[in-house]
Amino acid sequence: MKKTLCLIVKRISDLGERKAIQLIYRILSKGTEAIGIGDDCAAFEFKDRYLLVSTDMISEETHISKKMTPWQIGWFVVAINLSDIAAKGGKPLGMVLSLGLPKKTHEIYLKEMIKGADFCATLYETSIVGGDTKENQNITICGTVFGTVKKDEFMSRKGAKQGDVVAVTGKLGKAGVGYYALQHNIENKKILKGLFEPIPRIKEGMILSRLKVINSCMDISDGLSSSLYQLQKLNNVGFEIEKEKLPLTQELIKLGSQENLNIYKYGLHFGGDYELLLTVSSDKFEKVKRSLEKTGNSLTSIGRVIKNRKVYLIEENSRKILPDGGFEHFKGSNFF
Amino acid sequence: MKKTLCLIVKRISDLGERKAIQLIYRILSKGTEAIGIGDDCAAFEFKDRYLLVSTDMISEETHISKKMTPWQIGWFVVAINLSDIAAKGGKPLGMVLSLGLPKKTHEIYLKEMIKGADFCATLYETSIVGGDTKENQNITICGTVFGTVKKDEFMSRKGAKQGDVVAVTGKLGKAGVGYYALQHNIENKKILKGLFEPIPRIKEGMILSRLKVINSCMDISDGLSSSLYQLQKLNNVGFEIEKEKLPLTQELIKLGSQENLNIYKYGLHFGGDYELLLTVSSDKFEKVKRSLEKTGNSLTSIGRVIKNRKVYLIEENSRKILPDGGFEHFKGSNFF
Repeated sequence: MKKTLCLIVKRISDLGERKAIQLIYRILSKGTEAIGIGDDCAAFEFKDRYLLVSTDMISEETHISKKMTPWQIGWFVVAINLSDIAAKGGKPLGMVLSLGLPKKTHEIYLKEMIKGADFCATLYETSIVGGDTKENQNITICGTVFGTVKKDEFMSRKGAKQGDVVAVTGKLGKAGVGYYALQHNIENKKILKGLFEPIPRIKEGMILSRLKVINSCMDISDGLSSSLYQLQKLNNVGFEIEKEKLPLTQELIKLGSQENLNIYKYGLHFGGDYELLLTVSSDKFEKVKRSLEKTGNSLTSIGRVIKNRKVYLIEENSRKILPDGGFEHFKGSNFF
Repeated sequence: MKKTLCLIVKRISDLGERKAIQLIYRILSKGTEAIGIGDDCAAFEFKDRYLLVSTDMISEETHISKKMTPWQIGWFVVAINLSDIAAKGGKPLGMVLSLGLPKKTHEIYLKEMIKGADFCATLYETSIVGGDTKENQNITICGTVFGTVKKDEFMSRKGAKQGDVVAVTGKLGKAGVGYYALQHNIENKKILKGLFEPIPRIKEGMILSRLKVINSCMDISDGLSSSLYQLQKLNNVGFEIEKEKLPLTQELIKLGSQENLNIYKYGLHFGGDYELLLTVSSDKFEKVKRSLEKTGNSLTSIGRVIKNRKVYLIEENSRKILPDGGFEHFKGSNFF
């Protein structure tokens, strides 16, 4: 009888990004100082503050569309890094950028990219303080941002409590509708801007953290449903999200009506909005909402934290499991 | 008469890495807090200390040889980042890693890479506190390290004075001879280790900085001659380097003799040694040397700082200009 030797070689495409990250953290000898592992930022105790650090790499395989201008690429990498500081309530101190570029890259392309990066950093009252350029086959940019937050103002991903209101800043679906437009060659600069020029919620994060009442917070870089599942696992709780409360962006509603789209799909399951998702006890929600509105942005209650460890979507009095449909690297759900 | 419109499009391969970095810094709005621009690390004032930050990206195009094990790749990216902290006399606080990996990467490959990175970080009493994995066409890893140093112990690249002794820690040519072995398929693990597993001089940097007498310091990641030219430009001075004083590694001397090599070329012009290059006033050199020797490492005087803004190599009583032959990205002088 012939025996077949079956050697199972796992590849990271089977694991997906989050499992790959879990694998990494199991191997690492944990530093005594770091408290933010598994959060948006790593956090170190530094006198009365935490020093926050986060890193994000983008490349032509994942985030860089051929339709993006180099200025937008520069903006994008700075914005998504700042978003991680925002989610912890931090004030950014500065950023470093590593640029991996093909040899044939034009000087003007590099200049425009740096102008976009610098513009975004300056707008959020920080600066790019160092970097590195290296040859790479395809454009690959890695940004690392650092900031500080007072220890008692740090907004962790952990802390969601049963009964908390679940809320999001701003509008959802900006990146989703941008992605739809991109895929269908709809040349609408405003719509594409929602995808290519995300807004880091630095000001909002700082205002929220100073209130010292936010129970848990993260940015929704990977999409709302995916973010909810991440919070659900970390906090051993569940969520009930009310579909009709979702603050979908006007661009999505308008294009959705023209193109007959399932607009909620774009608001729930597409990464790239970079709004803040938070939970806060229900008696404090109205005060938090009013404080946040002073920034000119909005805070919308979209549901509540429940004991049952499931994520439900409530729609016309029926309650269904919300699928975890967000963006995950290595899993073939790439944007571009 | 026919006119030819000649549009000159500069590409970054014409600029080279250092000019590309200069171009970037001209565009950036300088942050008020950053003092380390153009140095090994960016440095921020943080109470009585500087917070040091540095970033380095490696990829298959530049630093990752097919002969490296994944463990060595992990070690390498951590070591070269730590080296920048060492050059400023800093104590590392932690590191973040961004891993850009092809989808087909094996799980075991990722595990080994993380083990190598973690081993190096732990050996130098720090840890990897966060990271990010993303899909990339080719392996691209970006590390960002941060550390602290007391303000009065920060070792700047600027400060070299006429009459200073020029000195290097450890041995030179470790990476050069490794590169030769690699190119000529010489399977010698010890020699290749010099190239693939550089040693960050953290302990040495901390001892040197505490003496508060080092006038200028940098790591020689790009090779000795290139590093001397970088210091020369920053400090408006020149150097006289004595060829016979160069502390070449035994592996280079031995292989050089077998293969009839110009061993000085490998000691002077090859990047990858990651030793510290410093200048210190001549009356303090002996004390510094003795302090450093307590670490088990050596400090060798290789020449002196001169007024004339040239870099000379002295050899058998003749003085010639030392060419700037170091490694520079985008210029076609890549290692692998």
